[in-house]
Amino acid sequence: MLRIMAVTKDHEVLLQPSVESLSDDQIAWYWVDFTHPDEEEIKLLSTFFHFHPLAIEDCLHFLQRPKLEYYQGYSFFVMHALDSHSLSAKEVDLFIGENFIVSFHFDELKELDSTWNYFQSVRDYSAVSPIEVGHKIMDKIVDTYFPIVQNIEDHLLDIENNYERGNKHSLIQQTFDVRGDLLKVRRSIFPMRDLMYRILESKRFMISEHKKAYFHDIYDHLIKLSEMIDSNREMTSDIRDNYISLNSYKMNNIMKTLTVITTIFMPLTFIAGIYGMNFRYMPELNWHNGYFIILGCMTALGLSMYFWFRKKGWFDQE
Amino acid sequence: MLRIMAVTKDHEVLLQPSVESLSDDQIAWYWVDFTHPDEEEIKLLSTFFHFHPLAIEDCLHFLQRPKLEYYQGYSFFVMHALDSHSLSAKEVDLFIGENFIVSFHFDELKELDSTWNYFQSVRDYSAVSPIEVGHKIMDKIVDTYFPIVQNIEDHLLDIENNYERGNKHSLIQQTFDVRGDLLKVRRSIFPMRDLMYRILESKRFMISEHKKAYFHDIYDHLIKLSEMIDSNREMTSDIRDNYISLNSYKMNNIMKTLTVITTIFMPLTFIAGIYGMNFRYMPELNWHNGYFIILGCMTALGLSMYFWFRKKGWFDQE
Amino acid sequence: MLRIMAVTKDHEVLLQPSVESLSDDQIAWYWVDFTHPDEEEIKLLSTFFHFHPLAIEDCLHFLQRPKLEYYQGYSFFVMHALDSHSLSAKEVDLFIGENFIVSFHFDELKELDSTWNYFQSVRDYSAVSPIEVGHKIMDKIVDTYFPIVQNIEDHLLDIENNYERGNKHSLIQQTFDVRGDLLKVRRSIFPMRDLMYRILESKRFMISEHKKAYFHDIYDHLIKLSEMIDSNREMTSDIRDNYISLNSYKMNNIMKTLTVITTIFMPLTFIAGIYGMNFRYMPELNWHNGYFIILGCMTALGLSMYFWFRKKGWFDQE
Amino acid sequence: MLRIMAVTKDHEVLLQPSVESLSDDQIAWYWVDFTHPDEEEIKLLSTFFHFHPLAIEDCLHFLQRPKLEYYQGYSFFVMHALDSHSLSAKEVDLFIGENFIVSFHFDELKELDSTWNYFQSVRDYSAVSPIEVGHKIMDKIVDTYFPIVQNIEDHLLDIENNYERGNKHSLIQQTFDVRGDLLKVRRSIFPMRDLMYRILESKRFMISEHKKAYFHDIYDHLIKLSEMIDSNREMTSDIRDNYISLNSYKMNNIMKTLTVITTIFMPLTFIAGIYGMNFRYMPELNWHNGYFIILGCMTALGLSMYFWFRKKGWFDQE
Amino acid sequence: MLRIMAVTKDHEVLLQPSVESLSDDQIAWYWVDFTHPDEEEIKLLSTFFHFHPLAIEDCLHFLQRPKLEYYQGYSFFVMHALDSHSLSAKEVDLFIGENFIVSFHFDELKELDSTWNYFQSVRDYSAVSPIEVGHKIMDKIVDTYFPIVQNIEDHLLDIENNYERGNKHSLIQQTFDVRGDLLKVRRSIFPMRDLMYRILESKRFMISEHKKAYFHDIYDHLIKLSEMIDSNREMTSDIRDNYISLNSYKMNNIMKTLTVITTIFMPLTFIAGIYGMNFRYMPELNWHNGYFIILGCMTALGLSMYFWFRKKGWFDQE
Ligand SMILES: [Mg+2]
Ligand SMILES: [Mg+2]
Ligand SMILES: [Mg+2]
Ligand SMILES: [Mg+2]
Ligand SMILES: [Mg+2]
Ligand SMILES: [Mg+2]
Ligand SMILES: [Mg+2]
Ligand SMILES: [Mg+2]
Ligand SMILES: [Mg+2]
Ligand SMILES: [Mg+2]
Ligand SMILES: [Mg+2]
Ligand SMILES: [Mg+2]
Ligand SMILES: [Mg+2]
Ligand SMILES: [Mg+2]
Ligand SMILES: [Mg+2]
Ligand SMILES: [Mg+2]
Ligand SMILES: [Mg+2]
Ligand SMILES: [Mg+2]
Ligand SMILES: [Mg+2]
Ligand SMILES: [Mg+2]
Ligand SMILES: [Mg+2]
Ligand SMILES: [Mg+2]
Ligand SMILES: [Mg+2]
Ligand SMILES: [Mg+2]
Ligand SMILES: [Mg+2]
Ligand SMILES: [Mg+2]
Ligand SMILES: [Mg+2]
Ligand SMILES: [Mg+2]
Ligand SMILES: [Mg+2]
Ligand SMILES: [Mg+2]
Ligand SMILES: [Mg+2]
Repeated sequence: MLRIMAVTKDHEVLLQPSVESLSDDQIAWYWVDFTHPDEEEIKLLSTFFHFHPLAIEDCLHFLQRPKLEYYQGYSFFVMHALDSHSLSAKEVDLFIGENFIVSFHFDELKELDSTWNYFQSVRDYSAVSPIEVGHKIMDKIVDTYFPIVQNIEDHLLDIENNYERGNKHSLIQQTFDVRGDLLKVRRSIFPMRDLMYRILESKRFMISEHKKAYFHDIYDHLIKLSEMIDSNREMTSDIRDNYISLNSYKMNNIMKTLTVITTIFMPLTFIAGIYGMNFRYMPELNWHNGYFIILGCMTALGLSMYFWFRKKGWFDQE
Repeated sequence: MLRIMAVTKDHEVLLQPSVESLSDDQIAWYWVDFTHPDEEEIKLLSTFFHFHPLAIEDCLHFLQRPKLEYYQGYSFFVMHALDSHSLSAKEVDLFIGENFIVSFHFDELKELDSTWNYFQSVRDYSAVSPIEVGHKIMDKIVDTYFPIVQNIEDHLLDIENNYERGNKHSLIQQTFDVRGDLLKVRRSIFPMRDLMYRILESKRFMISEHKKAYFHDIYDHLIKLSEMIDSNREMTSDIRDNYISLNSYKMNNIMKTLTVITTIFMPLTFIAGIYGMNFRYMPELNWHNGYFIILGCMTALGLSMYFWFRKKGWFDQE
Repeated sequence: MLRIMAVTKDHEVLLQPSVESLSDDQIAWYWVDFTHPDEEEIKLLSTFFHFHPLAIEDCLHFLQRPKLEYYQGYSFFVMHALDSHSLSAKEVDLFIGENFIVSFHFDELKELDSTWNYFQSVRDYSAVSPIEVGHKIMDKIVDTYFPIVQNIEDHLLDIENNYERGNKHSLIQQTFDVRGDLLKVRRSIFPMRDLMYRILESKRFMISEHKKAYFHDIYDHLIKLSEMIDSNREMTSDIRDNYISLNSYKMNNIMKTLTVITTIFMPLTFIAGIYGMNFRYMPELNWHNGYFIILGCMTALGLSMYFWFRKKGWFDQE
Repeated sequence: MLRIMAVTKDHEVLLQPSVESLSDDQIAWYWVDFTHPDEEEIKLLSTFFHFHPLAIEDCLHFLQRPKLEYYQGYSFFVMHALDSHSLSAKEVDLFIGENFIVSFHFDELKELDSTWNYFQSVRDYSAVSPIEVGHKIMDKIVDTYFPIVQNIEDHLLDIENNYERGNKHSLIQQTFDVRGDLLKVRRSIFPMRDLMYRILESKRFMISEHKKAYFHDIYDHLIKLSEMIDSNREMTSDIRDNYISLNSYKMNNIMKTLTVITTIFMPLTFIAGIYGMNFRYMPELNWHNGYFIILGCMTALGLSMYFWFRKKGWFDQE
Repeated sequence: MLRIMAVTKDHEVLLQPSVESLSDDQIAWYWVDFTHPDEEEIKLLSTFFHFHPLAIEDCLHFLQRPKLEYYQGYSFFVMHALDSHSLSAKEVDLFIGENFIVSFHFDELKELDSTWNYFQSVRDYSAVSPIEVGHKIMDKIVDTYFPIVQNIEDHLLDIENNYERGNKHSLIQQTFDVRGDLLKVRRSIFPMRDLMYRILESKRFMISEHKKAYFHDIYDHLIKLSEMIDSNREMTSDIRDNYISLNSYKMNNIMKTLTVITTIFMPLTFIAGIYGMNFRYMPELNWHNGYFIILGCMTALGLSMYFWFRKKGWFDQE
C-alpha cells in the first residue's frame, strides 16, 4: 500500500497525488509511505526513485540493524520500532533527501500511522520539511520504547518487593524472562542510540542548529533508556545471585535437620534392633531391669549426640 | 511556591520582589526558585521567562537524567539530589543565564533551602553572581552524597567484621540490600560526575579560571564517590561469593556426617533385623554363642566402615 | 592446481592462459587462483610473482589470523572462510595489485569456485578489475557466515522454547556446545570485521567512492554478525544460569521431601523398635490398651512433626 | 611538629631555621615538613604560606584520593603511603613550588623520615632542588608498595602450592582475605599510577628531560604493581572457583555413597521387618527352608541393586 | 660470561675481541652478550659502556616487565623469554645503539645461543647491523611462545574431546591448571605485544620501512598469541561452568533416587515395625488374613508413593 502526500511551493498540501505527478515543478517536497507493499509497488523504488541497489536490498531482505548510510542525493536510515507485546523489532527504512522522504516498512505501525495523520492536517506547512517528518517518525518510535522499558522496570521492582513472601521459584522464572526481554530490546535500542549519535555528529545530514535540539532530545531519551536497560540487567543478576545464596542457606538447614534426626535415631534404632533379635541365649534380656537400663543408655546416647551438635554450633542461628 | 531575590547594580539585595519587577533596569541579576509550583506559577516558565519548550518539558515530566543543555541565552542543568533515607533521586533543574538563575524542583530540598538562606545574608554581594549560586547548589547537593555513601561503606565494613560470628544469613541479606542501594545511588552519582566533567570542559558555559577550582573540587568529590561505589560493589560480590564457598564447605561436612552414620548403622540394623525374623527354622539362633558372634561381626563390620572412611580422608580437617 | 584468467586491454577475457603469457603487453589484468597447489606451483609465488618472503610464509604456514599487509606494488589479505559443518576456519590469501589478483588456499572452497564461475562469463568486462574480484570473494565468504550464525541462533531459540518441557540436561549440553561454537566462529568473524574496517579506512588500498558502498555493505554485515554472536553468547550464559537456579530450587524440594519423611518416620520406627525388644520384663507390653496408647502417641508425635514443618513454612509454595 | 631545612644560594644547608627566616633573600629554596601539626602550626598554611583554601581543606579533611592540582605558584599533590600491616592508606600532601616544598601529613611516616634524614647530609646541594625532594618522597612511598604486594603474591602462591594437601577451608578463607587486601591496596595504587602519569604528561609541572627518567622509573613501578594486583585478583577468583568445583565433585561422591547404601539396605531391612511381624498366621515362616529362601532373595535383590548402579556408571572413576 | 663479536668497516667479523678493542676506529659495530655475568663483568656496564644507572638497576634487580626506554645514544629493551616447562619468564635486557648492541641476561637461553651462532657465520655482513641482531633475538623469543601456547591449546582440546567419557574430576583439575598456565604466560606475552607496538610506532627507534615488515611480523604473531590466550581462557571458564551444571544435574538424580527409596520404604518398614511390637493385646495379629491384609496395604501405599512421584515428574528424563 502506498500513501503519498506532497506540499507545493505555495505551502499547500496535496493528498494522495499520483506517483508520477511528484516530478511536477510546483511540488516543494513530498512524502511517500510504503506499507506492506506488493511487487508492483516495490519496483518503484528502482524505476521511479532510482534508489541504490544496496539500499533497496536492505529494505527487502531480512532485519537490518539500525544504521545510517549516505548515498548521492539522500540519506538512508534503518530504524527499529518495537512491538509492545512480543518486543520484536519491526524494521522501518527511510530515504530522506532535500525535497522528499520515502518511508518503507513491511508491518503496519501505529507510529507511522499517527505521524501520517499528524501531517495531514498541520496548520502551517511553511515550517514543515522532510526533516520534520523524519524527526517525528523517529520521535514516535523512541517514545514507544519508554512504556516498554518502564513496564519491564516496574515488573522488576515488583519482583524485588514481593521477594520476602511469595512464590520464589516463580519469581526467579520471571526474573529470567525479564533478563531475556532486556537483552531483546537492547539489541534494538543500543544501535538506535548509536544511530542518533551519528545523525547529530553528521556533517552530511545537515540539521540546522535550531532543529538539532529536537534530535538531541531523542538522543537524550535513548541514553536514558540505555542506562535503564543496563541497570535493570544488573538488577536481574543480583536477584538471581541472592536467590542462589538464599537457597544454599535453606539447603544447609534442611540437611542439618535430616542429619541430626538420623544421627540421633539410627544408632538408637539399631540398639533396639539388637534386643529384638531372637537368639536363644541373650543374657541382658533376662535382667530384671534390663529394659530400663537399655532405655537409659539410649537416652544418654541420644542426649550426647544432641549436645555434640550443639557444641559444634549446628543449632546457632545462621 | 516562588522564592525570588535580586541584586541591584549597587550590590543591594532585594528580597521577594515581584516577578514583573525583575525586568527593571536597576537589577544586575536575580534568582527565582520554584518549589513545588502550582499551575499558575509553572506558566511563568514560558510566559515570562520564555524558556524552550523542551527544557520546560524536562522540568515537568518524569525524572530526567543529570545533563547540561545549551539554549539561546542560558544553560539548562538537570541535577539529582539524593534522599538520605530512601536513596531516591529528586530532580533539581537550573536555568543559568548571564544575569539570572532559575531553579525548579517539585520536592522540598534542604540543599536548596540552606543555599537560599545563605544568599539572603551575604555581606558583600559584589562577588556574587548567578554562577556562585549555581555552584553552591551543586556543592551542597554533592556534599549530601558523602554521608550516604559513607554510611553504606560503614555498613559493609560492619558486615565484614561481624562475619565470623553473627547471623550469616541475615548478613547476606544485608549485603544484597547494600548492593541494591549502591546500584541505586550509582544511577544518580555517575551521571552527575559526567555532567560536572562537561561543565569543566565546556566552552559555552564560561567559568573564570579562578572559579574553576571550586567546580573542580566538586568534580573531584564525584570521582572519589564513583570509586567508592565501584569498590564497595566489588566488596559485596566478594562477601557473597565467600558465603557461598563457606556454605558449600559446611554442606560437605553435614553430608559426610550423615553418610558415615548411615553407612555404618544401616547394614548393622539390617543384620539385627535378619535375626529378628520369626522363621521357625533359623539355625544360628540356636547357637549358644550366636548372639555374641553376631555382635562381634557387627562390631567388625562397623569398625571396617569407620576405617574405610578414615583411609578415604573423610575425617581429615578440611 | 592453478586457475588463470586474464582480461585484455580490449576487455576480452582469456581463459587458462599460461603463467608466462601474463607478462604480455596486451593484458590489462589477470587473476591466478592457487587451489591446493603442489610444490612446483608454490615456487611461482617467488620465482614469477616475486612476492615478499613474509607473505609467502604466511600462505604456507599454519592458520594466520585475518589481516591486511601492504607490500610494494600489492596488498596482502588473509581471510577466513568458515566450514558450515565443522565451523573450522579455512585460510584464503589474496595478493591484490593494480593489475592482478592472486588467490591462494589449500582447501577447495565453494566461495572461490562460484566466484571463479561468475567471472568466467561476465557480459561486460570493462567494469571489472582486480578489486571487483576481491570484493566478490570477500562478499561470498561473509555471506556464508550468515546461515552459520543464524542456525546457531535458531538452535538457541529452540532450546529456550523447549525449556519448560523436554530433557533439560540434554538442553544444557546443547547450550554448552552452542557456546563453544560461538566462540569458535567468533575467532574468525571478529578479525574479519576489523580487517574490513581497515580496508575501508585505508589510504593505501584505494577504493573509489562508488565502490566503497559495496565494501561497506560487507562491513555492515560483519557488524551485525558480531552483535548476533555476542548477544547469543550472553543468552547461553543466561540459559545456563537459569538452569542452575532451577536445579537449586528442585534440589531443595527433593531434600525437603526426604527430610520430612525421615523426621516423621524415623522416631516412630524407633518407638516401634523399642516395643519390639524381647526383654523379659517390659511393663507397657502388658497393659491392656498399651498397643493403642502407643499408636496414639505415635500419631501425636507424627502430627506434631508435620505441623512443625508447616509452621516453618516448608510446605509453602516456593 | 615542624621540620624545616633551607638551602642558601651558596648551596649551604640550614637546619631548623625559623619559619619567618624563610623569606630571607639568601635562601634559594626550603623544605617545611608538617608532621601531625597542632592548631597553631596548621594556621601557618594560610597565614604564612597563603595556600588556597581548597588545598588546605584537602589537607585537613578526611582521606583525599591521590591527585595533582595546580594553583598559582605551586602544584598541590595528594599521595597515599600504605601501612605494611593494616594496608590502610595514610595521606601525604605536598605543595611544590619553584623554590619551596611543603609536606603535610597527620601520621608519622618512615618514608618521610628517611627522606628527611637523607637530605640532611647530602654532599653537594647544587644538584638538589624541591623537585628532587618531591621525587625522593614519591620514590620511597612507591618502593614500600613492593614488599606489600609481593607478600600478598607470595601468600597466594603458598595457597596454590598447599592446595592439594592442607586444610582447604582455611585456605579458602585466606584466599578471600587476600582478595580483600588486594582490593584495599588497589584503591591507593591505581590512583597513584594515574597521578604519576599526569605528572609525566604535565606541561605545567615542568621536569627537565634528564630528571624525567627518574619520575618515569616510579611510573614504571606503578604499572608493574597494577598488573601484579590485577593478575593476583584474577588468581583468587580462580582458586575460589576451583574450590567450588572440587566441593561439588566431593559432594557427589558423598551422596552417591549414601544413596547406594540406602538403596541396597533399606528394602532388605524392610523384607526382614516383614518377617519380623507377629501375625499369627504367616505361611512362609513355617517353610522349612523359608529362612534360606528369603536370605537368597535378599542377596539377589542386593546384588541387583549393586549391578544396576554399576551399569548406570555410578562406580566409574570421576 | 661475555661473548663479543664485532664487524669492521670492511664487513669483516672479529670473534671474541677484547672489550677495550671495541673503541677501535675500524669497528663498524659490535655485539656484547652478558650471560650470567660475574661482578667484574657487571661493572663494565657503567665503567665501559656508561649506561644509565636506572637501566643498570633494571638489569640487576628483580624481574622487570617488558618495556622500552630511551636514553641518550641508545634504547633500552626488557624482554621476557618463556621457559617451556615451568612457563616462568626469564628477563633479557638489550641496549641497542647506532653501532652496538649489548644483551644482558642471568639465565642461559637457547634463543640467545642460537642467535649468537647464527651471526657467527653470516655470509654477507654488509646487510647486518645491531638492529638485525635485535630483531633476530626478538623473533626467536616470540617463536618459542608458539609451541607453548599451542601445547596449552591442544591440551584444552583434548580435555574437551575426552569430556564425555573419562575421569571428569581429573579433567577439571587439568582445566584449572591450564587456566593458571594461561594467566602465567599472559603476564609476559601481553606486555611483549605492547612493547612491539611501541617499537613499530616509535619515532625515536628508527627502523627503515623495508625492515619494518620484519618487526611487524613479530607483532602480528604476538596479536595472534594474545587472541589465542584470551580465547582459551574463555574456554576454560566454559568447561568449568559446564562441569558445575553437569554435577548439579547428577546430584539431582542421586538425590531423587535416595528420596524415592526412602519415601517408599521408610513408611512400609514402620508399618512392619508396628506389627513386630510385642504388646500382649494387638487385635490385628489374630486376624486370619491379617498378614495378607497388611501386605496389601503396604503394596497399595508403596504404589501410591510411586505414582505420586511419577505424577510430579520425578521420573521424567531430564
Ligand atoms: Mg530489511
Ligand atoms: Mg521524544
Ligand atoms: Mg517529544
Ligand atoms: Mg517506573
Ligand atoms: Mg520471554
Ligand atoms: Mg527532553
Ligand atoms: Mg522532570
Ligand atoms: Mg564540596
Ligand atoms: Mg565545600
Ligand atoms: Mg568510613
Ligand atoms: Mg533496600
Ligand atoms: Mg577538595
Ligand atoms: Mg558464578
Ligand atoms: Mg597460512
Ligand atoms: Mg553480502
Ligand atoms: Mg551481496
Ligand atoms: Mg533466525
Ligand atoms: Mg561442538
Ligand atoms: Mg546491505
Ligand atoms: Mg586530607
Ligand atoms: Mg623506585
Ligand atoms: Mg630508586
Ligand atoms: Mg615473589
Ligand atoms: Mg583482611
Ligand atoms: Mg627501573
Ligand atoms: Mg632485572
Ligand atoms: Mg617469527
Ligand atoms: Mg621468522
Ligand atoms: Mg593446535
Ligand atoms: Mg600449573
Ligand atoms: Mg607472518
